[in-house]
Amino acid sequence: MTLNELGEFGFIGRIATSAGSGGGVVLGIGDDAAAVIPTPGLQTLVTADMLVEGVHFDLAFTPPFELGRKSLAVNLSDIAAMGGIPRFALLSLAIPPGLSLEILDPFIAGFTSRAKEHGVTLIGGDTCSSRSGFVISVTLMGEQEPERIVRRSGAGGGDLLYVTGFVGDSALGLALLRQGERVGAAITRHLDPIPRTAAGVALAAKGMATAMIDVSDGTLADLGHLLKLSGCGARLFLDRLPLSPEYLWRVPELKDDFFSRALSGGEDYELLFTAPAEREEEIAALAASLNLPMTVIGEISRAPGLIIISPDGSSHIPASRGFDHFAR
Amino acid sequence: MTLNELGEFGFIGRIATSAGSGGGVVLGIGDDAAAVIPTPGLQTLVTADMLVEGVHFDLAFTPPFELGRKSLAVNLSDIAAMGGIPRFALLSLAIPPGLSLEILDPFIAGFTSRAKEHGVTLIGGDTCSSRSGFVISVTLMGEQEPERIVRRSGAGGGDLLYVTGFVGDSALGLALLRQGERVGAAITRHLDPIPRTAAGVALAAKGMATAMIDVSDGTLADLGHLLKLSGCGARLFLDRLPLSPEYLWRVPELKDDFFSRALSGGEDYELLFTAPAEREEEIAALAASLNLPMTVIGEISRAPGLIIISPDGSSHIPASRGFDHFAR
Repeated sequence: MTLNELGEFGFIGRIATSAGSGGGVVLGIGDDAAAVIPTPGLQTLVTADMLVEGVHFDLAFTPPFELGRKSLAVNLSDIAAMGGIPRFALLSLAIPPGLSLEILDPFIAGFTSRAKEHGVTLIGGDTCSSRSGFVISVTLMGEQEPERIVRRSGAGGGDLLYVTGFVGDSALGLALLRQGERVGAAITRHLDPIPRTAAGVALAAKGMATAMIDVSDGTLADLGHLLKLSGCGARLFLDRLPLSPEYLWRVPELKDDFFSRALSGGEDYELLFTAPAEREEEIAALAASLNLPMTVIGEISRAPGLIIISPDGSSHIPASRGFDHFAR
Repeated sequence: MTLNELGEFGFIGRIATSAGSGGGVVLGIGDDAAAVIPTPGLQTLVTADMLVEGVHFDLAFTPPFELGRKSLAVNLSDIAAMGGIPRFALLSLAIPPGLSLEILDPFIAGFTSRAKEHGVTLIGGDTCSSRSGFVISVTLMGEQEPERIVRRSGAGGGDLLYVTGFVGDSALGLALLRQGERVGAAITRHLDPIPRTAAGVALAAKGMATAMIDVSDGTLADLGHLLKLSGCGARLFLDRLPLSPEYLWRVPELKDDFFSRALSGGEDYELLFTAPAEREEEIAALAASLNLPMTVIGEISRAPGLIIISPDGSSHIPASRGFDHFAR
């Protein structure tokens, strides 16, 4: 069956069938708007991200199931970076005429599989035709107690700077995909990033993180956002950046600077956060319990400015920091 | 200044400056997610709509200020159709390289002007580049008391069928725009539709409407959605359709059926609702107080099926009902 034969409302019905049903949903897909019950006493967190064909993904090497998972994952990562518990998603799609149900069905299956893993219910959205590329727009709502929500602005002088997992793998994976490779750990990290929901919620619940952001634009760029809003500076130690075995093995054969992907690559969807030095042991215990590395990569300074310390002890101030959608 | 020179974060900063600040916003634009305080006891309503260049609008004859207003209006209309009070919006934009700030600045100004008129605060979204057309994705959150929310599914046999305002003007306006005209009441209705927020809230607050939907796909199509979810049928009287002076004057010179735009045109963003016959006087009083016509155009029948009664008294069952994004 083609999308033409199925029709707009047939396709919406197919999505609604796989949307699942979670607590708090009064009205899901099928009315003018969805209706949900906010948990008393909690604040509502909400974030939106767009993924555009030819900008964020290339269907030539992006399997649709993973694309569906990633479309939600990038939003789950934003809610995690606030320490929030994700709850309800809306999915809007602009679909070019040539895109078949053989792509759309696994895309929806991927989206809903990621949703189920994080307790998220798909409650609405929009579908329409596109004269150009495939465009995906996702809105995700979450919740948290007011005093537990972690902002970008709370870092203080003397705090340690942490990052979860590995950085740079997503950019490495993209480079390998563009070279024609199709399998490997870094490629999986690029196509199907893992949102750090459990880590974000735990860091918030225990009041460990003073400031937090997810690494979407690149470690330096996102650190820059956090420092700007916190009114602080930082020293970042290159030799402490958590690099995966594949990064250590494959990056030297690529021709650019060894650290560039870890610093500016983006799309790792790890959590970059700050915490007082006295919480170091607690954070180590949390990292062990979640089986997720949380590595100290630097320290926050009261004075503004970001200084990068190289493995040889020399220091420099970085010029460009990361991805800007409108830069030339 | 160009968008390239301003950069992604400069542009976001410019949007944030004009976003306004409303009650209930803890964190607006600038963190990983926005945080808002739900009003205790109310349910949260949420809807999302996409507007795609070349599908929903043509920049050749769509002024960007009006496009900004319409991008929010189509979502305001969805919240109004639930009887909800609109509160918080998220705006995501995929921007092609050629789109200048001379278009984007009035677009944002239009969006925020419509937001202020309806008490809505812009709290987040996303901006990215597009390889093809301009794509606008808006999410709107609203609120209402659980027992006041009006669904599509509540119509009952014997209810009267109402529509607010005029139908068919938006489709007429689009036809006139495509013919090269640039001014007139129908053109204004197409470019800058008026969401019926006050009417929707009042109909909900006083428990008048048993079912409600907004007219976005066309009167017949949206009536079909309402009837399907209510498990009812209806008789619709063509000679009761509220047609504007411009419709009566201009449509005869166009070559298609006189009623086709009023029945299938779409994008009027009027409210189509049902109410028990005994509320007729109250609804007339509400219409007078809002200075907004609320016209009885038919009646709900217990038996499924939609029957159209022509001015000469003959009846027929309509075949096709309205716009399907994926129909051939």
